[in-house]
Amino acid sequence: MTGDDACMARALELAALGTGTTSPNPLVGAVIVRDNTVISEGWHEAYGKPHAEAAALQAAGTAAAGATLYCNLEPCCHRTPEKKTPPCTDRIIEAGIARVVFAVHDPNPHVAGLGQKTLEKAGITTTVGVCADRALLLNEPFIAWIQRGIPYVHLKIAQTLDGRIAARDGSADWISSEPSRAAVHRMRARYDAVLVGAATLQADNPSLTVRHVAGRNPVRIVVDTHLRHLEGARIISDGAAETIVACSEEAARSAPALGPSVTVIGCKTDKTGRVDLTCLFGHLSARGISSVLAEGGGALATSLIAEGLVDRLTVFTNPSIMGSGVSWLSEIGVERAGDRPRLHGVIHARSGDDMVMSGLLDVKRTYGTMDAPRVGEDVLPWNETGVV
Amino acid sequence: MTGDDACMARALELAALGTGTTSPNPLVGAVIVRDNTVISEGWHEAYGKPHAEAAALQAAGTAAAGATLYCNLEPCCHRTPEKKTPPCTDRIIEAGIARVVFAVHDPNPHVAGLGQKTLEKAGITTTVGVCADRALLLNEPFIAWIQRGIPYVHLKIAQTLDGRIAARDGSADWISSEPSRAAVHRMRARYDAVLVGAATLQADNPSLTVRHVAGRNPVRIVVDTHLRHLEGARIISDGAAETIVACSEEAARSAPALGPSVTVIGCKTDKTGRVDLTCLFGHLSARGISSVLAEGGGALATSLIAEGLVDRLTVFTNPSIMGSGVSWLSEIGVERAGDRPRLHGVIHARSGDDMVMSGLLDVKRTYGTMDAPRVGEDVLPWNETGVV
Repeated sequence: MTGDDACMARALELAALGTGTTSPNPLVGAVIVRDNTVISEGWHEAYGKPHAEAAALQAAGTAAAGATLYCNLEPCCHRTPEKKTPPCTDRIIEAGIARVVFAVHDPNPHVAGLGQKTLEKAGITTTVGVCADRALLLNEPFIAWIQRGIPYVHLKIAQTLDGRIAARDGSADWISSEPSRAAVHRMRARYDAVLVGAATLQADNPSLTVRHVAGRNPVRIVVDTHLRHLEGARIISDGAAETIVACSEEAARSAPALGPSVTVIGCKTDKTGRVDLTCLFGHLSARGISSVLAEGGGALATSLIAEGLVDRLTVFTNPSIMGSGVSWLSEIGVERAGDRPRLHGVIHARSGDDMVMSGLLDVKRTYGTMDAPRVGEDVLPWNETGVV
Repeated sequence: MTGDDACMARALELAALGTGTTSPNPLVGAVIVRDNTVISEGWHEAYGKPHAEAAALQAAGTAAAGATLYCNLEPCCHRTPEKKTPPCTDRIIEAGIARVVFAVHDPNPHVAGLGQKTLEKAGITTTVGVCADRALLLNEPFIAWIQRGIPYVHLKIAQTLDGRIAARDGSADWISSEPSRAAVHRMRARYDAVLVGAATLQADNPSLTVRHVAGRNPVRIVVDTHLRHLEGARIISDGAAETIVACSEEAARSAPALGPSVTVIGCKTDKTGRVDLTCLFGHLSARGISSVLAEGGGALATSLIAEGLVDRLTVFTNPSIMGSGVSWLSEIGVERAGDRPRLHGVIHARSGDDMVMSGLLDVKRTYGTMDAPRVGEDVLPWNETGVV
């Protein structure tokens, strides 16, 4: 393998192997190359395990001296009480690495630019920006979370071509194609938690586990203000994964015991008397939940968007029409057509016969001080970027 | 140019040059090849002008003897009182053409298979099926019209990602991207007529002419049962193209004079008291209107679909959201999600940042006895097929 782009592409592949297990750490892969030959590889496998750079250096041994290290994120240089591993910059310097190529700076304020400076001070050549757009997309949830401390929220919708998520009678079976349903399971495996409203629980009684693909189950969260929709719910009884029930503080006080894998969280209520989602996300942050996949239904999706809590919106559109039925989005305060929110960095894709459109609702909110990725024809399709 | 595929691809390009002027005749192009060299080309330029085969043969002169003729539709072999040109098969035989390659049979019952038989009887080798799918898409409106005598209807919608065509206040400016708006003007130039409901006339006061691209203006049709929405309408006053106002028979009897380029057509009314669209399409057929581009709004789109009058549905989806607002489709009689109509032969495309999805609602209704085209990765994008 030769060329910075090819080596970084491999580092990104390796990084993706940690999908679902590194949170709240980022996905990182590392490749060590000398004389145009890969001498070792590594990736961050799970939170608490060695960083990608350390794993690759360990595998290279003394052969690392004079070599080039590729990784998709700036190597860390900090020690904080909660941090489980020593700084990678120390190890890189000790190993005698001659050059470090990384895709993007680490947005973590303990690192941001300091990792690079530390390496350069030690006489190591650094190159930054190789495959930057793909690297940003891959770690988008981490980038948002590390800068603002509130969970990254990805809202996923499966609709008909006329914007319906269910028929008039509430039935919503098989709105999207089979490849799209599998894609949703892949998405679940990437996020710390999945979130649904009580109406979805009642209508579909979903398991919210990862089934059609390999991957670990996320925490399941249902918003049910008055605890009125839990009877018979699979996510309460099946014990297949941890479940959080978010309700009002009042309802929480008189909540029945729901089982060993179920936690009830009492939240403030908003003006309409429903669980205040910002309060809920505060509780989730405190539990270390850094990313959430919101799967609907319409009331929850509308609240999340109206309150500005959604980072990325991904819509699967099936080539079928419903006519009347349930819309996935209602009042969000748009008065005139010209004032409507637009997606940024739009990714277009196909999933079976479905179309997929994905984009950010507020680039600044998600990327903070970092430049958002440019998404164009040259960026890999959504299902390879790890975004969806 | 060598190879049947390449020569037929050129014939299809030539055929498309007649877009908008050959109706109700099909689009046909012809290429004459001898010794791997194109010796002449031709296309059907306009209704009443020579057929593509005749034009190419005329240009080739005596060089046509022993050559191969490529054309996208089976050469005609019939004489009917209203037909303006002699049979192409006669000319092909006279010219001494050795082989004829065509893409699809002519669905016109006066020709269907007989053209081919006539050529073979004269000792000419024939090959059928080259680039058949593209040839079918190119002449889809003709194929539907010639078999059933009722106009082909293409319903075009521009919506937000949540299925809205206008905001709550009715404003709908710039729902789709600039490339999509240009695409709609290209579409208009392909159809005999464009059709809108009275609500669209009131909300947008559109011109319905072809502007951002070259092309002739279609006939403009507005459905306004009680003639209550015409005041100030551009399509009534601007004289830029022929306009048809469809209203109830009662309203037609007391209709005021609306100008030299405006025709009022009185139609039966349906159970709800509105213009019966099947009756309207009967009037349009009688006037030789073989294809209609329906541009909305929601009430018209819903009636057209509910009454099974739409051949092709094409939806431009913009990456923006409206929340509340006007949906383009309401009650069409779907009770359960599983019963909803699905599009067939779905074409996916991008248009600027918009997604485009296009498909047929009832393949049998549109293609009749012919096999519908298979649409896949190997078919050209929608904007090159001439479908949209």
